[in-house]
Amino acid sequence: GFVHIKNPHLDSMEEDILYHLDLGTKTHNLPAMFGDIKFVCVGGSPNRMRAFAQFVQRELGLAGAGEELPDICAGSDRCAMYRAGPGSPSASHGMGIPSISIMLHELIKLLHHAKCRDVTIIRIGTSGGLGIEAGSVVITDTAVDSSFQPRFEQVVLGDVVLRSTELDKDLAEELLACSREIADFPTLISHTMCTYDFYEGQGRLDSALCSFSSEKKLEYLRRAYDAGVRNIEMESTAFAALCGLCGLKGESCQFYLL
Amino acid sequence: GFVHIKNPHLDSMEEDILYHLDLGTKTHNLPAMFGDIKFVCVGGSPNRMRAFAQFVQRELGLAGAGEELPDICAGSDRCAMYRAGPGSPSASHGMGIPSISIMLHELIKLLHHAKCRDVTIIRIGTSGGLGIEAGSVVITDTAVDSSFQPRFEQVVLGDVVLRSTELDKDLAEELLACSREIADFPTLISHTMCTYDFYEGQGRLDSALCSFSSEKKLEYLRRAYDAGVRNIEMESTAFAALCGLCGLKGESCQFYLL
Repeated sequence: GFVHIKNPHLDSMEEDILYHLDLGTKTHNLPAMFGDIKFVCVGGSPNRMRAFAQFVQRELGLAGAGEELPDICAGSDRCAMYRAGPGSPSASHGMGIPSISIMLHELIKLLHHAKCRDVTIIRIGTSGGLGIEAGSVVITDTAVDSSFQPRFEQVVLGDVVLRSTELDKDLAEELLACSREIADFPTLISHTMCTYDFYEGQGRLDSALCSFSSEKKLEYLRRAYDAGVRNIEMESTAFAALCGLCGLKGESCQFYLL
Repeated sequence: GFVHIKNPHLDSMEEDILYHLDLGTKTHNLPAMFGDIKFVCVGGSPNRMRAFAQFVQRELGLAGAGEELPDICAGSDRCAMYRAGPGSPSASHGMGIPSISIMLHELIKLLHHAKCRDVTIIRIGTSGGLGIEAGSVVITDTAVDSSFQPRFEQVVLGDVVLRSTELDKDLAEELLACSREIADFPTLISHTMCTYDFYEGQGRLDSALCSFSSEKKLEYLRRAYDAGVRNIEMESTAFAALCGLCGLKGESCQFYLL
């Protein structure tokens, strides 16, 4: 149940500085601080992740509810991390694949150094929706790229390596079952398209540069819909690939914010 | 000298909401707020961009020096923007191409709505260095991708569009001339490599996943050096492409932080 670190160099390093989290193996007792983690929730916005940690704290009736939560990564303005209580930190990853990738590499090493076991990681983000009701929650079964393919292209030393972007099907079903207790948010399991940008890549007509017509946009989105895509965001392929390779039970859920 | 917005849809829009900046054409008088802008400095970290605005304020002896500067985009935690005085806001863009791309689309539209003329935009970031002294400043002549090619691959509705990544040569020379007044920082003009991530893409050995040897890493970095690359970061190709297409005089300078 340990996190799989697939890096033979790491064991021979005297110190591991998790630079963007402002944590490190020499400066912090990571097993004592984080060894009890079972769940991690990540999302783009630091303010939302703080609000989420406060929500969890209230819902679970934990001590300190209503008080200000300290940012564990306060020394870095690249990521923020809050803990409502034992077991469940929530952390921010910024916008886009490169940004979440940095944060996940360091978070996965943190879980490894802290000797955490059986960790579940859930991305809770926002997205655009495709043929679904605004306010819906999409639980991703497979993240697809802008060609609707279930793959993540990682460049390693200039070469493209293809990685799988399937997420944990059991966890998706578990989350869907939870959603049935909440009537307000229609919830579905489907494919999520992940793009490299918010404007031109997602067919928005209000960018600084726009070379396509409204018809071309709709044609593209229709093709995405026909390929099973129900929402569009900017992190899920990298998230799915890294969770899969590092043995983390991972799921990505997005709220369709109109 | 106006900013070139290449989007025929924009004129027919009743309102333009610059969502990630928390500004808009109906909610803010953009010409009054920003019409005098001649220079914009952008960088990844919000704290650094605030510190930079305060530095400019002190250096120029502007009123309010030493006081706390308000974040113009305070309603959004995606970007931060500070103004030291007339003319020169400094704004943060987060980490990586997708993040800077969102911010630049909205910043460029902001300059357009505010009817700014002859705007110069300078990215001031940090980077890794290649065969140069730590603490050096690299002024980018051309941003190259991970195959050392001077191009930015933008996906538009699923299709890859190649864009030029040359920056303003005159501005680069002007900045180099300025650097001669400061003895502390060796400064050079050269190619900058822009990657899609910080760990595997840049050949780091301390990632959560690492499939290559130290020798392979050095071989790749040597090839980059031979192609004229002197530093590596994560935003310059998208920055160069968008500035070029939108008629902004743009330059990217990075400080090699060891």
